[in-house]
Amino acid sequence: MRDLSEGTRFLSLNTATLRGQWDLRQTIDGIARAGIPGISPWRDQLQAMGLAAAAQAIRSHGLAVTGLCRGGMFTSFDRAGLARALDDNRRAVDEAAALGARCLVLVAGGLAPGSRDIAAARALVGDGIAALLPHARACGVPLAIEPLHPMYAADRACINTLKQANDLCDRLGDGVGVAVDVYHLWWDPDLAREIARAGAARRILAFHICDWLVPTTDLLLDRGMMGDGVIDLRRIRGWVEAAGYDGFCEVEIFSKENWWKRPGEEVIATCIERYHRVC
Amino acid sequence: MRDLSEGTRFLSLNTATLRGQWDLRQTIDGIARAGIPGISPWRDQLQAMGLAAAAQAIRSHGLAVTGLCRGGMFTSFDRAGLARALDDNRRAVDEAAALGARCLVLVAGGLAPGSRDIAAARALVGDGIAALLPHARACGVPLAIEPLHPMYAADRACINTLKQANDLCDRLGDGVGVAVDVYHLWWDPDLAREIARAGAARRILAFHICDWLVPTTDLLLDRGMMGDGVIDLRRIRGWVEAAGYDGFCEVEIFSKENWWKRPGEEVIATCIERYHRVC
Repeated sequence: MRDLSEGTRFLSLNTATLRGQWDLRQTIDGIARAGIPGISPWRDQLQAMGLAAAAQAIRSHGLAVTGLCRGGMFTSFDRAGLARALDDNRRAVDEAAALGARCLVLVAGGLAPGSRDIAAARALVGDGIAALLPHARACGVPLAIEPLHPMYAADRACINTLKQANDLCDRLGDGVGVAVDVYHLWWDPDLAREIARAGAARRILAFHICDWLVPTTDLLLDRGMMGDGVIDLRRIRGWVEAAGYDGFCEVEIFSKENWWKRPGEEVIATCIERYHRVC
Repeated sequence: MRDLSEGTRFLSLNTATLRGQWDLRQTIDGIARAGIPGISPWRDQLQAMGLAAAAQAIRSHGLAVTGLCRGGMFTSFDRAGLARALDDNRRAVDEAAALGARCLVLVAGGLAPGSRDIAAARALVGDGIAALLPHARACGVPLAIEPLHPMYAADRACINTLKQANDLCDRLGDGVGVAVDVYHLWWDPDLAREIARAGAARRILAFHICDWLVPTTDLLLDRGMMGDGVIDLRRIRGWVEAAGYDGFCEVEIFSKENWWKRPGEEVIATCIERYHRVC
């Protein structure tokens, strides 16, 4: 395993971690000031700042873009809805290409509106990614399927285990991989095996870290700082690295009542300290 | 599939569904008054009413006890803690026997205190059930392992899929089965297969129903009434019955801000109406 106890060489910050206190420009500057070499922005923030300005600012600091959040949301039964989703995903690919992002993160989408058929939703996701893939390949942007925790199956993502994502990748071929997020996957009894499987296929495109708090008070916005929860971060990183992953550890924390309320400099300093000590 | 559109023959009410408004005696009487033939009580309520009095009241109404909630919580690394858990589980078996309950529902337990090792927790659960099993067999009380949703993996149950529960049953032998709760399992891509597997081994001991609300505002106490959420109840019941299950459909709804605040009679009437119409 890599030694993370000094420096920040493999550290990236997802801009959502600072969404409560900083806009994208402040976040880019703050990350660069702290000597963190990686960033993963969200599309709404790019739009607010302007893609060209954001790309220029990120480039001027020499930051690696470890992912763009996010594409996906493929689960509509409506032909017009599917077309809109595909258009939007193609724009997301273009933005990822403009930023030189290492991947476009895909959040599958939950049940189709008005539907209770999760198997049908899962089929739509496969079809949607297949339809997006030619453009992504042409642009050289890898697509990273991110399985989300089963508590988001209804409304955000019907891909809930790494096995499902691996199975999809097997079917879809080149140009698609997975994002391994410890928050979503830590509980999965098949996690070690599926990480090894993903690594053997060279498809681990991103590794996201944070922690699962006990108690968790909000389904979406109560993620913990690494070390404050119960996820065995080092064990999972060990599996990911043993599978051949040598990329960044990207911190992604949605924390409405805690970390989003603190000064950005304090959040970043804490991320670095925990990256050294508990990741 | 059985026709549930009339009568209440296969309906059972878990007493937690009325925990906000009624004590156990009121719940027993209310269930009987409504012509519902099954009940599944919680141990804290039995203790408050007195086991003998509760057993007598349930018997006097001729109610089937479709399960006793709950045993389990086996995940301690501490020898004294394990002994206490085992003692308590043996008492739970005795109570289930006194009530003539069809099973004792087991909620595995989450991570051991201070631990991040979920594999170790899962091993403790297997050991705990194995230690309890001789007493349960001697008393003629089947143990029902209830997999809980992965959002409870840290603090309530590290058994989170029906496959895990089936694997445990394979190892443990006679006297142990599973409780299939749609709230915990509806998202699982392997659910149909694992229900068939459980049925083939004649180990489906209980079938629990409610619904998953969108949005869900509380991890524990925001379950929905059948039909108000996104779970494909009839499809899952179809799988369970195709697997040979011919027992009760037990309604278990924890709903602090909605159903626990309504008159008990209204909750029961709604359960019956939804049982007829959407289950």
